[in-house]
Amino acid sequence: MPQAETTPLRIGMVGYAFMGAAHSHAWRSAHRFFDLPLTPELTALAGRNATAVEEAARKMGWSSTETDWRALIERDDIDLIDICSPGNTHAEIAIAALRAGKHVLCEKPLANTVAEAEEMTEAAQEAARNGVFAMCGYSYRRTPALALAKRMVDDGRLGKIRQVRAQYLQDWLSDENAPLTWRLDRNLSGSGALGDIGAHIIDAAQFVTGQQITGVSALLETFTRRRPVGGDFVGLGGHGDTGADQEMGDVTVDDAAIFTARFDGGPIGVFEATRAALGRKNAMRLEVNGTLGSLAFDFEDMNFLQFYDATDRSGEQGFHRIMVTEPEHPYVGNWWPTGHGLGYEHGFTHQVVDLVTALAAGSQPTPSFADALQVQRVLGAVEDSAAADSRWTPVESEPSMARTAFTTTAEEIR
Amino acid sequence: MPQAETTPLRIGMVGYAFMGAAHSHAWRSAHRFFDLPLTPELTALAGRNATAVEEAARKMGWSSTETDWRALIERDDIDLIDICSPGNTHAEIAIAALRAGKHVLCEKPLANTVAEAEEMTEAAQEAARNGVFAMCGYSYRRTPALALAKRMVDDGRLGKIRQVRAQYLQDWLSDENAPLTWRLDRNLSGSGALGDIGAHIIDAAQFVTGQQITGVSALLETFTRRRPVGGDFVGLGGHGDTGADQEMGDVTVDDAAIFTARFDGGPIGVFEATRAALGRKNAMRLEVNGTLGSLAFDFEDMNFLQFYDATDRSGEQGFHRIMVTEPEHPYVGNWWPTGHGLGYEHGFTHQVVDLVTALAAGSQPTPSFADALQVQRVLGAVEDSAAADSRWTPVESEPSMARTAFTTTAEEIR
Amino acid sequence: MPQAETTPLRIGMVGYAFMGAAHSHAWRSAHRFFDLPLTPELTALAGRNATAVEEAARKMGWSSTETDWRALIERDDIDLIDICSPGNTHAEIAIAALRAGKHVLCEKPLANTVAEAEEMTEAAQEAARNGVFAMCGYSYRRTPALALAKRMVDDGRLGKIRQVRAQYLQDWLSDENAPLTWRLDRNLSGSGALGDIGAHIIDAAQFVTGQQITGVSALLETFTRRRPVGGDFVGLGGHGDTGADQEMGDVTVDDAAIFTARFDGGPIGVFEATRAALGRKNAMRLEVNGTLGSLAFDFEDMNFLQFYDATDRSGEQGFHRIMVTEPEHPYVGNWWPTGHGLGYEHGFTHQVVDLVTALAAGSQPTPSFADALQVQRVLGAVEDSAAADSRWTPVESEPSMARTAFTTTAEEIR
Amino acid sequence: MPQAETTPLRIGMVGYAFMGAAHSHAWRSAHRFFDLPLTPELTALAGRNATAVEEAARKMGWSSTETDWRALIERDDIDLIDICSPGNTHAEIAIAALRAGKHVLCEKPLANTVAEAEEMTEAAQEAARNGVFAMCGYSYRRTPALALAKRMVDDGRLGKIRQVRAQYLQDWLSDENAPLTWRLDRNLSGSGALGDIGAHIIDAAQFVTGQQITGVSALLETFTRRRPVGGDFVGLGGHGDTGADQEMGDVTVDDAAIFTARFDGGPIGVFEATRAALGRKNAMRLEVNGTLGSLAFDFEDMNFLQFYDATDRSGEQGFHRIMVTEPEHPYVGNWWPTGHGLGYEHGFTHQVVDLVTALAAGSQPTPSFADALQVQRVLGAVEDSAAADSRWTPVESEPSMARTAFTTTAEEIR
Repeated sequence: MPQAETTPLRIGMVGYAFMGAAHSHAWRSAHRFFDLPLTPELTALAGRNATAVEEAARKMGWSSTETDWRALIERDDIDLIDICSPGNTHAEIAIAALRAGKHVLCEKPLANTVAEAEEMTEAAQEAARNGVFAMCGYSYRRTPALALAKRMVDDGRLGKIRQVRAQYLQDWLSDENAPLTWRLDRNLSGSGALGDIGAHIIDAAQFVTGQQITGVSALLETFTRRRPVGGDFVGLGGHGDTGADQEMGDVTVDDAAIFTARFDGGPIGVFEATRAALGRKNAMRLEVNGTLGSLAFDFEDMNFLQFYDATDRSGEQGFHRIMVTEPEHPYVGNWWPTGHGLGYEHGFTHQVVDLVTALAAGSQPTPSFADALQVQRVLGAVEDSAAADSRWTPVESEPSMARTAFTTTAEEIR
Repeated sequence: MPQAETTPLRIGMVGYAFMGAAHSHAWRSAHRFFDLPLTPELTALAGRNATAVEEAARKMGWSSTETDWRALIERDDIDLIDICSPGNTHAEIAIAALRAGKHVLCEKPLANTVAEAEEMTEAAQEAARNGVFAMCGYSYRRTPALALAKRMVDDGRLGKIRQVRAQYLQDWLSDENAPLTWRLDRNLSGSGALGDIGAHIIDAAQFVTGQQITGVSALLETFTRRRPVGGDFVGLGGHGDTGADQEMGDVTVDDAAIFTARFDGGPIGVFEATRAALGRKNAMRLEVNGTLGSLAFDFEDMNFLQFYDATDRSGEQGFHRIMVTEPEHPYVGNWWPTGHGLGYEHGFTHQVVDLVTALAAGSQPTPSFADALQVQRVLGAVEDSAAADSRWTPVESEPSMARTAFTTTAEEIR
Repeated sequence: MPQAETTPLRIGMVGYAFMGAAHSHAWRSAHRFFDLPLTPELTALAGRNATAVEEAARKMGWSSTETDWRALIERDDIDLIDICSPGNTHAEIAIAALRAGKHVLCEKPLANTVAEAEEMTEAAQEAARNGVFAMCGYSYRRTPALALAKRMVDDGRLGKIRQVRAQYLQDWLSDENAPLTWRLDRNLSGSGALGDIGAHIIDAAQFVTGQQITGVSALLETFTRRRPVGGDFVGLGGHGDTGADQEMGDVTVDDAAIFTARFDGGPIGVFEATRAALGRKNAMRLEVNGTLGSLAFDFEDMNFLQFYDATDRSGEQGFHRIMVTEPEHPYVGNWWPTGHGLGYEHGFTHQVVDLVTALAAGSQPTPSFADALQVQRVLGAVEDSAAADSRWTPVESEPSMARTAFTTTAEEIR
Repeated sequence: MPQAETTPLRIGMVGYAFMGAAHSHAWRSAHRFFDLPLTPELTALAGRNATAVEEAARKMGWSSTETDWRALIERDDIDLIDICSPGNTHAEIAIAALRAGKHVLCEKPLANTVAEAEEMTEAAQEAARNGVFAMCGYSYRRTPALALAKRMVDDGRLGKIRQVRAQYLQDWLSDENAPLTWRLDRNLSGSGALGDIGAHIIDAAQFVTGQQITGVSALLETFTRRRPVGGDFVGLGGHGDTGADQEMGDVTVDDAAIFTARFDGGPIGVFEATRAALGRKNAMRLEVNGTLGSLAFDFEDMNFLQFYDATDRSGEQGFHRIMVTEPEHPYVGNWWPTGHGLGYEHGFTHQVVDLVTALAAGSQPTPSFADALQVQRVLGAVEDSAAADSRWTPVESEPSMARTAFTTTAEEIR
């Protein structure tokens, strides 16, 4: 049967653990539900272990494999490199790919240090001049409820924003016997809860408010300082690793990061990221209070957005529990009828949609590396403040760059 | 790259609207997340309009098309017929397919009348003797929270069950201007809310309790008796149809069905299905009270199951809000880490997993046509009671047949 | 210190168990928070056991006691008789009191049979001609959230009402060892869950919608047919009784009552009252769907009313979780600042406020005995239908009488 | 009728606004529901305006009035002074009363400065040697759900505590036109959200965990710096004041206080107090994560405590929504049957119960002034840190004193 599909966009992906599975699904599915200007093809998957990468490629639907990411970048039949490997590898791969003229999608956090993130951003800006684009995978922006939140803020439904409270609470490290994986090794992951999940709420808070954090006062804590060594650090890295091995190793990252913040438009904020909040499974929560309205979101109830409208009739005011599954909500019209909720992976599919749409238009997808660098600088300021008696620590910024990006996104999600 | 995939299972599907999209996604995705003994192939899609079916096939990933379902059944390269067309077509297609030696997956409700459902069940039992199997698509059974509920009942965690309350509340027909689609035409759909969504709560209540409804007293109501004609009755049939045409037509089905019931193991039940409950988008709710525990579920919060355990310590009793995303929960281990919720379509993927697993083992998948016939008989008794002053109306049953099916399922979901 | 209090309203109360305690608190407290035209005085308490009634009077603040309710009625220093004794005593006491020129407040349900309720209503109408008034204690009407619900319906915020679902779920009889109290003896209590708590949801549904139930189809069930004898049937009768005595007695009332209904303005309804729904402590739930809005209430969250407004902006629709603690909400302005919730007993205080206000104005307080008789007739129809194979059973009615009452109330709660 | 009541405890109260009304209700009601060793008598009420205080006394049930608190203290017929006037008056009145041999109940926060609180504590400790006791009114400790939380922590149900997150969110100052009352004047109230409601979450967090805060890093913010002058600063002071007057005045206190903290047993904490969180009416929230369990509470749902038990069966874990209305829950047995919720004012009644019980036993009621001083020191440290670039600021402490108090309370609430 003749296929009238669009021009292909040939993907090469590095890494095939949790994030690799989520990205693969998105690359396979986006054009099945959305009309895309380019059709993603799962061309090649790279990983160090030949057997494992072949098995993963077969399972996830990739047409070929490489055991060295450099080989991936050298291939002519690859248009975009998707980086799903640990944070310590991001900078090298991304910069090489961009210099080789490949678009890049890089998982968050952008890098393990601000310095790396700066180099990456420079490379991205250089590449952009030649029509080669880089994007960082803050996929939660593409959760319909958060995209709707952003749209409502942009539409002025909250009035002037005063307060932000953001929490990302998980509990998979609450158990002292949970094994030491790459995510607990500072050399590989850069930081702990802070970079893994704190980065998400920093990005989400800035995305939804359209404002940047200008300073922080922080405290980091590690509750469990030694853990059993076990599991395959690079191959899986997932939350489900179980180590029966009794050898113990040092945890070199934080279990919890808490900080206060100020935003450039005036609001104050409270942030908490922890992987030891027993009972909270994936409580990525954001609450924004303005003079006209307030919003509240919890990823554990990801299909809902709570909205308090101070302009509702007297006596009828109360948080609206909006089920974000109506055709008029961002991204939702392409899925199921009203009331049929989406799941975790849909954010990645929407990310593919937005990325592919921007690439086809020759425009910068968001969040750009510059946007992600700004998040990285907040992470850096948090670490600096925590190391300096919680002293107030300004966040460096180049606002013009990032704000452009925000504006673009606001239009996209209409 | 050499593919070490399993034997293919070649699918031919009839219909490509809402259900067709959900089934296509499931056929495409199941083997990407689960290890299947057979690999589904989207071989052919059938629909009456050549242009539309080709466009749908391209979009959904089907390799070829047919404009007559009979041609589909005649093809040698098809192993299974998946019926996603309106209820009035089920019996003819399913019986022909089974007689041609094709396995059948048929959307629910099984048929528009008990008589049709009986014929289909007979054909299914005949085919089963030759190793050809039929299954009905009550996909909500595969929602992890409801599969967990069933497992907990089977494990005795509720003690003796006393009461069931089940509601399926939607609001897409609350608006009097919503158009007249095939779902509002008794000749095509058999009934209204009763068969469309009431069937789901009947099946779910019987599935979770492991008991059958033995009698009902019912009331049916149609709030809006005439609606604007519009939309393509067969092609789309979705909830989102909007008709600008001012021509009006008669609604020949119920907007709401309410009934009381008794189950064969002793419990009493209250059921309500409505598509006019303003504000409820997809509130498929089931609550079961036993002597030792109670369960509560709402599909709008589909990743949660509420469980009250009377054996909890005194003073600490209260409904547990179980986030059904742990590896030990049914189906969940193959998806994302704990706390990363699933969406509506995952139930269809799990349905494919269970169906393919049963077919490879040469065993009867559940729910069988016999199970679905039993639901059909409850639907019939509801209509009979409503037509006879709500008089108590027994449900015919052949319990041995269906109970076997329940037992099989109970094991499957471990 | 000179007291500038208002004219006293001297109360004589019969019974001092659970309801007696709640009423005493209300009589003591109402004028402390509300400006009342008459000041209630706790003049005399009646009970059969002299020691127990004196102890109760001292504890609850009553100035004197009687061991025969007839003596109470004969006293000149009593203006109003408050009947808190079991249902089998209501008719005799109320009729005698009214004939003696005493106002009457009678706990619900009004009586144990329709015939008694009719006699009482006749006596009340006779007395009313002489300015002596009777009221029935359906106190849930005075929960601010339900009074707000009624006001919103009256204001047209729901449009045309189509569906009602009402549940009253408790679990104190789930345990088979809970003792046999007067509430389980048909001769004393009239019925089980039906009259005890089913009466509340019937009244609440009719009050909020402003409509009357015209017919029902019902099913009653008793799960535990024999229970240990124990406790003082009349004195305490509360939920907390524990019987260590092994003597067993017959339960002669229902554990659960479920029924479908039609209202005179068109809506259909589903009702369920049960004292065996494990885990539900006092879930008196009411949900009303109209063409413009929907309301949902659960007494376990009594300070909240959920409201779905179909006229909210597109994309922002969702149930408003109204915390009914604003000064503009019914009754609330006399209590605490916004956000400081009320408890169960406040409904009784509000009942005193409305009753005293009506008496001072020489007008009929609501719900009148006629209103309560109408509820009794629904209870009677439910029992009749359940005894006749769930056959549809019309509810007798004299609508003009009761509808007047509803209108009065609607104004009161502004 | 002869009254067999217990020895009277004669109360003199200063102030009759919001807190005065709540305290009056508690003094009137406690012995009606609880068996008290002393019977409170509402002997005298003091206020500066003779007419207003007489009207208040009549309304609230006080037998006499004074226009100078000093006169109250001089009266022989007063056993206890209850201080409900603004914070700037606490120290002088409390110290004078204690020196005059009167027991003291003082509203929170104890004082406007640490220095005042220290003087008060000294006076209290001096008085205690003579059997005269002082207590501070952190009444939220007596909310059954929080008392249960404390008991569960003491019983080890949470294991080792790691994290605390506490928020007190209100919105009555979100509106820029809300008037300038005494609560917005630093000279009268000491601070804003910090002392008004932040004090509550500090006390609650320390009470429930049984641990003290040892240091903080803080940020204070005032969103609205000028407000219309209006209302009677001293007389009402409530949230409901509305000022039509256009004269504007300076707000000299914080609208929001946010801080991170460490506790002496190891946990870290995040705190937020704000009166500008639009849509949150009285969201006093506390969440505690331990190694074995977690607790969550929100005062807007005050009758519930959420408890996650890591020792629940695998697959059945989830927050238990405990409705804290069972007889085995703290304070609850004296009220209504299970499921009949309490309201805001019940905490004050329980406070009277505990206070009277301790006084009759000649033992120190809790929280003592020493306990309240410790909270004051945390408030002081928060202000110091906020004034010093959020620098980490230790909290002075004399732990032995306060810890004794905690232990006493733990036993009381069994």
